Amino acid sequence: MSSSLLFYLCSLLCVALGVASVACVSLWSSRWRGGFAWDGSGLQFNWHPVLMVTGLLVLYGYGAVVYRVPLTWGQNKLPWKLLHAALMLLSLILSILGLCAVFDFHNAQKIANLYSLHSWIGITAVALFALQWAVGFAGFLLPCSPVAFRKLLKPVHVWLGGSILLLSVAACISGINEKLFFVLKGTPNGTQPYSSLPAEAVLGNSLGALIVAFGLVVLKILANVNWQRPDSRPGDTAYTVRGAGKNIQK
Amino acid sequence: MSSSLLFYLCSLLCVALGVASVACVSLWSSRWRGGFAWDGSGLQFNWHPVLMVTGLLVLYGYGAVVYRVPLTWGQNKLPWKLLHAALMLLSLILSILGLCAVFDFHNAQKIANLYSLHSWIGITAVALFALQWAVGFAGFLLPCSPVAFRKLLKPVHVWLGGSILLLSVAACISGINEKLFFVLKGTPNGTQPYSSLPAEAVLGNSLGALIVAFGLVVLKILANVNWQRPDSRPGDTAYTVRGAGKNIQK
Repeated sequence: MSSSLLFYLCSLLCVALGVASVACVSLWSSRWRGGFAWDGSGLQFNWHPVLMVTGLLVLYGYGAVVYRVPLTWGQNKLPWKLLHAALMLLSLILSILGLCAVFDFHNAQKIANLYSLHSWIGITAVALFALQWAVGFAGFLLPCSPVAFRKLLKPVHVWLGGSILLLSVAACISGINEKLFFVLKGTPNGTQPYSSLPAEAVLGNSLGALIVAFGLVVLKILANVNWQRPDSRPGDTAYTVRGAGKNIQK
Repeated sequence: MSSSLLFYLCSLLCVALGVASVACVSLWSSRWRGGFAWDGSGLQFNWHPVLMVTGLLVLYGYGAVVYRVPLTWGQNKLPWKLLHAALMLLSLILSILGLCAVFDFHNAQKIANLYSLHSWIGITAVALFALQWAVGFAGFLLPCSPVAFRKLLKPVHVWLGGSILLLSVAACISGINEKLFFVLKGTPNGTQPYSSLPAEAVLGNSLGALIVAFGLVVLKILANVNWQRPDSRPGDTAYTVRGAGKNIQK
């Protein structure tokens, strides 16, 4: 199988897993958890998983792999750079809205913020993401950014990008696990217990499995040296030569 | 800074984070959770986090990076391959013991097994790890294994290795988060609630932060093409030429 065909198969899988994750988390919040509102109630909390999975995971993952599409390699990089920055900005905005949803809910219900490990990992992911976007914008999109700075920034940007995705997956998994324990308590609140694996538990666990699979496919696409845009490959002569002059594009 | 010096700094960080994670989880189980036993009680459960963090995360991570030490590149690969296999086998044995600890505890306490997302992710990690070890042993250590099979297996082995580490990190984080919610319930069981961040919560959250940092450093070491043993680099001519003949070493 050619490397390019394998790339498109992986990308198709990536798109499908992302869509399935968003569908699954939306179904969970809307059908099993009662739907959405922005009123400080549990219905406001329901925006949190939907916005975080859609923003911090799926759109983020899509935004991360746009440079890898071989069809775009012969084209000017700028439109793809702008698409990357736009997708990441949208992803960041949705993530921040997702944080607002849970903070508002906690404040209205007098629940403490940022004490659980899930919240520590999640807030670190969003903070690093905001920093990454701002430094990436200044370094790679502002014309006044020096080439030497871009060269230095590039490997850090790539590594931090993958790391944020790993944090995002860990935050999603711990959050889903925690939520299922909170809501499926059994007799005390009239639900079936999580341990008897009712339909909602299977849905939540399947969402977790989809999220992990999505993260693995995105990281696989990012890690494959043969799928990196030729002017970006580590150790690639073209990159090194361009890196020393004005042709470096990112 | 030279690439080799950076490698040793990253490795030092990797070793330090691994040791700190094991120390932290041991301290948690022994001092805050009452110590260890193998009698079906909560003290048997306490082996679970210690064995999983030590086996499935830290020893696994150490085992994954042994090929990356530049000092070894001029040497025969076989002893390093044996060290890799031995570390991974020890890691697998500890992980299986860690699963036995929690299954025994659940069975003795009449708690269901394998219903939570944490358990789904964890059991998948251990099952894939066992498969990876067995196939890796057959493919890379048995002399009768065909070179063509080794060539085919190599990228799958490397990718699956990183994926198991990601699963392991997600399982650890969701497990620690879940355990802290279970044990720090506040008034009903006479503890301070998790939400008031008592010392045990800070210890557990810090353990989670150490685990994530360890995972990121290991994945960073594995992802750096310049730190891959020369005969293993993707697209490396030596590898390609050797791969076609009898000199391929893994």
